[in-house]
Amino acid sequence: MPDIQTLRWIPGAIPALELIDQRVLPRRLEWRSYAARTGAAGVARAIRSMVVRGAPAIGIAAAYGMALEAARQRHRPIAAARVALAGAAQALAASRPTAVNLFWALARVRRAIDAHHGDSERLFTTLLRLACRMQAEDIAINRAMGRHGAALLHKGARVLTHCNAGALATAGYGTALGVVRAARAKIAHVWVDETRPFLQGARLTAWELMQEDIPCTLITDNMAGHFMQRGAVDAVIVGTDRVAANGDVANKIGTFALAVLARHHRIPFYVACPLSTIDMATPDGAGIPIEERAASEVTGYAGVRWAPVGVAVANPAFDVTPARLVTALITERGVIDKPNRARLRGFLAT
Amino acid sequence: MPDIQTLRWIPGAIPALELIDQRVLPRRLEWRSYAARTGAAGVARAIRSMVVRGAPAIGIAAAYGMALEAARQRHRPIAAARVALAGAAQALAASRPTAVNLFWALARVRRAIDAHHGDSERLFTTLLRLACRMQAEDIAINRAMGRHGAALLHKGARVLTHCNAGALATAGYGTALGVVRAARAKIAHVWVDETRPFLQGARLTAWELMQEDIPCTLITDNMAGHFMQRGAVDAVIVGTDRVAANGDVANKIGTFALAVLARHHRIPFYVACPLSTIDMATPDGAGIPIEERAASEVTGYAGVRWAPVGVAVANPAFDVTPARLVTALITERGVIDKPNRARLRGFLAT
Repeated sequence: MPDIQTLRWIPGAIPALELIDQRVLPRRLEWRSYAARTGAAGVARAIRSMVVRGAPAIGIAAAYGMALEAARQRHRPIAAARVALAGAAQALAASRPTAVNLFWALARVRRAIDAHHGDSERLFTTLLRLACRMQAEDIAINRAMGRHGAALLHKGARVLTHCNAGALATAGYGTALGVVRAARAKIAHVWVDETRPFLQGARLTAWELMQEDIPCTLITDNMAGHFMQRGAVDAVIVGTDRVAANGDVANKIGTFALAVLARHHRIPFYVACPLSTIDMATPDGAGIPIEERAASEVTGYAGVRWAPVGVAVANPAFDVTPARLVTALITERGVIDKPNRARLRGFLAT
Repeated sequence: MPDIQTLRWIPGAIPALELIDQRVLPRRLEWRSYAARTGAAGVARAIRSMVVRGAPAIGIAAAYGMALEAARQRHRPIAAARVALAGAAQALAASRPTAVNLFWALARVRRAIDAHHGDSERLFTTLLRLACRMQAEDIAINRAMGRHGAALLHKGARVLTHCNAGALATAGYGTALGVVRAARAKIAHVWVDETRPFLQGARLTAWELMQEDIPCTLITDNMAGHFMQRGAVDAVIVGTDRVAANGDVANKIGTFALAVLARHHRIPFYVACPLSTIDMATPDGAGIPIEERAASEVTGYAGVRWAPVGVAVANPAFDVTPARLVTALITERGVIDKPNRARLRGFLAT
């Protein structure tokens, strides 16, 4: 079957960005269309409401959102277009706070805008080309990470993953699931954490793996420790939304608990991490903002409510795993063992 | 408000056992009636389908189930009644495998049957009295555990609990939540794990605590580590379905992961454990059978399905926490610090 693609650009007189609606998977495979008419605002809403999610995917969606905004501005004077684009970048940046890829992508687009010396029409072409390039680069990066990560696994490995760091979380192929895909001849089995509250594991990761006939078993998040205790897990591989300069890893809520459990059982804990996710401007995990999402995600699902009316809820969407619990970061340029500040700086300098 | 009562006996010409249907809480408070006509079989089904759940509660429900069966047999010859009761005990014992209280309660009823020297009518009266006594004893035991457990907590304690070890899991008052109730003047806040897949925390524990205005916050199971990391948890208190002779603790899936996280953060991990839950005939946790429940509990909830059709699922309902991760067992006769085989044997001998 063809690779799963998360985003696609529909060219034409009125161009549009199309996104797989990840909220309704796996029941329906629906594309949602964001036309130039709504500009970047529609894409910002899509990111906030998790039509598209996953750190690399929202970065690329934001780049396309800027291209859409440029399409909307392409018949206006360049000065007015620049003002509109600056506002669009702000709206996109405000959509989700934790994943650094969003800010990384927007910074790259802003540099292209700053470097531009033509009219609005040509600025649109420039930004669209940049977004397309970022999309293609992302897949190449994931394939490279996959190769480096696969080398860490032994034949017959049983891997556990959390959330969805797959094709759907990226432009395609995936980060953590990119490693699984690259290592599929070695991998005997994948444990899939359902990943409450938004159920990215149950809905998206299980679906992706089943599409490719990779053997997998769905479990609730609180079963991971039990299967580690029983000796049924050889490695944990997760993605990340931001890695601080000291190697601390922000990722989907529940990742930290897995890292503690992996350490307790002496199971390697790997983080698939494109270099764009490393944020040298944030000294450590304490500086990473943790998004708090709506209580309704916790009190029920899809219209079914199970918690008592009026109950207090906490819903941090991410947690921080300290670098000392990370066996290795897997990047597109190779593996960073036992990450710390010095190793990250050294690796990035080479 | 009056205490929450989980089971009630309705006397009369056709007596019945009534159980709160814990599957539909907190949306509806519904009592289900099990008439003498259906005997023990109806109660066995209620236990298997989790109308009633929680180790002490299913023990008492089984005792009432035997009384119901005796009511059904009360006009038959005593020899025939004994045969029917032996079959009823087998059916009840087969309803759920992990909690030892079920077997403990049935053994107690069997001893009463063996010691009986009258007709079937009087055997019914004997078994009904025994079930009533076990119900009353359970509440007294829970209140005693509450007092012992409360002494372990400091003023302002923020406690985390998993599943429901409350009034609903017992005849009333609760084991782990009994400690919370007894310590409520000291307790600042309770973190409630939702407890996937059956959501006993979200549905039952949150509801019980809200009934009594005990401040609580509902979280998904995978958030517990995050709040421990943030210094927001002073103690973990859970119930148990069976404690082996060496102090290993079987409890709701996810308990083991909490114990590992508590140890990592040097947070005390307490298990509220009536003496009837200690199974000296099982040497260690490896000997405790772990019930595997239906995949449908994991793939969705209440008619909403979110996982892909055909996905493989694991659904162990319990896990085993090794004794070395347990700070103390809280029993009705006092606290057993750092439980191990010698301490358990010594404590039970005194």
